[in-house]
Amino acid sequence: MADSYASHFGINNIPYGIASSSKRTAPQCATRIGDDIIFLAELAEYDSFKAISTPLSSIFRETTLNTFAALSKDIQSKVRVAIQEAHKSNLSKKCSESVKDVKLHLPVHIGDFTDYSASVNHVLNASEAVRGIREYPPAFHKYPVGYAGRCSSITVSGAPVRRPLGQFIEDYTVPKNNIIFGPSRGLDYELEVAAVIGKPVESGTYLNAKDADEHIFGLVLLNDWSARDIQGLEMNPLGPFNGKNFMTSITPWIVTLEALKPFEIPAPPRMQPVAEFMDDPKSINYNIQLEGQVLRNGTQSTTCKVGFETMYWTFRHMIAHHTIGGCGLRSGDLVASGTVSGDQKHEHGCLLELTNNGKVPITLSDESELRFLEDGDEVRYIGVVGDGSVGVGFGECVGVVKPARQL
Amino acid sequence: MADSYASHFGINNIPYGIASSSKRTAPQCATRIGDDIIFLAELAEYDSFKAISTPLSSIFRETTLNTFAALSKDIQSKVRVAIQEAHKSNLSKKCSESVKDVKLHLPVHIGDFTDYSASVNHVLNASEAVRGIREYPPAFHKYPVGYAGRCSSITVSGAPVRRPLGQFIEDYTVPKNNIIFGPSRGLDYELEVAAVIGKPVESGTYLNAKDADEHIFGLVLLNDWSARDIQGLEMNPLGPFNGKNFMTSITPWIVTLEALKPFEIPAPPRMQPVAEFMDDPKSINYNIQLEGQVLRNGTQSTTCKVGFETMYWTFRHMIAHHTIGGCGLRSGDLVASGTVSGDQKHEHGCLLELTNNGKVPITLSDESELRFLEDGDEVRYIGVVGDGSVGVGFGECVGVVKPARQL
Repeated sequence: MADSYASHFGINNIPYGIASSSKRTAPQCATRIGDDIIFLAELAEYDSFKAISTPLSSIFRETTLNTFAALSKDIQSKVRVAIQEAHKSNLSKKCSESVKDVKLHLPVHIGDFTDYSASVNHVLNASEAVRGIREYPPAFHKYPVGYAGRCSSITVSGAPVRRPLGQFIEDYTVPKNNIIFGPSRGLDYELEVAAVIGKPVESGTYLNAKDADEHIFGLVLLNDWSARDIQGLEMNPLGPFNGKNFMTSITPWIVTLEALKPFEIPAPPRMQPVAEFMDDPKSINYNIQLEGQVLRNGTQSTTCKVGFETMYWTFRHMIAHHTIGGCGLRSGDLVASGTVSGDQKHEHGCLLELTNNGKVPITLSDESELRFLEDGDEVRYIGVVGDGSVGVGFGECVGVVKPARQL
Repeated sequence: MADSYASHFGINNIPYGIASSSKRTAPQCATRIGDDIIFLAELAEYDSFKAISTPLSSIFRETTLNTFAALSKDIQSKVRVAIQEAHKSNLSKKCSESVKDVKLHLPVHIGDFTDYSASVNHVLNASEAVRGIREYPPAFHKYPVGYAGRCSSITVSGAPVRRPLGQFIEDYTVPKNNIIFGPSRGLDYELEVAAVIGKPVESGTYLNAKDADEHIFGLVLLNDWSARDIQGLEMNPLGPFNGKNFMTSITPWIVTLEALKPFEIPAPPRMQPVAEFMDDPKSINYNIQLEGQVLRNGTQSTTCKVGFETMYWTFRHMIAHHTIGGCGLRSGDLVASGTVSGDQKHEHGCLLELTNNGKVPITLSDESELRFLEDGDEVRYIGVVGDGSVGVGFGECVGVVKPARQL
């Protein structure tokens, strides 16, 4: 049986998700401790929750976490403590089911999805893989460069990814090569972490980086599936579109910033001065250790081990940059980091980097070659805080590759 | 008093919007004939609507048109006829208020917003303005190139646009110039037409171009406000982000495809063969005549007059390309054409083209120079079908430029 990751969900985690079961058929807000899924609308009927004087039970009966995410950090903190105490006193047992009996859903309604490119190593490696030179985007040292992604394609971990059809250059090594139509030959993953917006930021106001944590509800893992050949043809001049919009996977559990706070870790130092609103004396990432695996023919190969502390731009920077022009953020909006990559080869978070855009394969545990993903390959992405002993983690984000649709 | 555009809203239009008033305080579905706004939930209580055997009255009481847009074309067509007959028999009078007493809202909840670049002239003129050469994007002749835009920033005509703050190159004429932070100096408009998705397209299915009309509810005018300096720095490598995401304006009325059908007009011939799913023997645009105006110091100048028939890629192509990789479309999604531009200077739909990225100003009616928009400038965009005599049009899409926020 697959690992349930119970060790990620200790009493210090208390993540939030949306769950249903045969007993509780309506998707609703839940948390997880060990292998117990706790249904929060029922738990919030107890006095310790009523004392918080917010209509928690009805908020937790909603089919997304958007309303809860928008509540003040103060109330969310009280709820966290009340859940921990209800668990200690066994009060939560009556509102619980085993993880194996429960179906998990997308945790929030995502009104807008932004994907940044916040890693130094990723931008340099991607530049080398695509253009043969290690060069920063012109703005890289001033702000995280990002683009808007597709909301309708975001699914929760476990959904299979169908190889997309599209148009691309038949052989990118041949100048002026034909553009053909067919199933992508360059299917890739991108291992990312994403922030879920809590308290909204009104359009026309803006945030300083140092104040942005107030608007982050928590983090998820995210796999930004990418078709490199389809993407390659469309990048000039408008950026990623069909090369990315066919699917994006996230973990079902949102780990709150409060759970992550004890595991803050300094971000890399600034290489160039930044604008005042981007200046963050306490520039921090979180000590999240990430592992990427490819499962082929029943054999598991680890393709990546990297720490989130490597990211040059932090979520505070990403959110400040996002709002400075007047763009509003709504509760539930997703802001992703871009591929997490370290400077070592085993720290590369996508195949574009690891196989130099498919040109230099790696060998998997079953002795087969990996350039890009093949039909039947499964990608598993796991994130845990610190050395794994503190009981805080994200579980896994998985998806198996299905063959392209028949035309 | 401003033109109410009553002549755009004849009996052959029957557009849909969301309206409220002091008498009818809840925003709800409405149509417009002449200067009368007809509240449809009330009208649908009459027998002629009940015969359609769809719960129209409750659908029209919703705060967006998403549910109505998703209904079959057959039902929508019956509703159109019933509205026209109710008007002729004066039945609609009791459910009507004057346009001057009514507030109009965003007509749909927009789950995803896509912006294409479908005009030959726009891509060549923009290439020349930015890079000094008239060159097509590599994929241009195979499919419309597009990117995802920001949903939270879409507002209905009339909302002012605040000049965005951002980071950009101080003087793009000087190589390796400083990146500075401040109010944009390159605020521009982009005159576009956008399709509103009706019947959804499920993720993982796909559409042939020739079948895509089935999924288009109707069209709106759209102003894709752009800050060229902010956008210029961020284009490499991920495309438009803060240069566009501060605001997008649309008209409050969605003109249905059924109203536009008699005004189909051939799109330009293909310059290169296309993939089979993109092949559309009846490649059509609509005979929509567009006018762009800048109002400064009380004086009106026409900056653009162009026909929508100039667009190389049609909405059918845009939607087919959108779905081919597996991306789903939901009712209410917005798919915009990109700047509409003809080959003559007076047909250029943005200042990037008209003033060569601010380098060659034009002279307005008040003798002042226009390079980019100044604080206080108002942009008005009007669209009418055919020569204006057929009673079908979009009204106007307007917004006035407010000074940048103080830091």
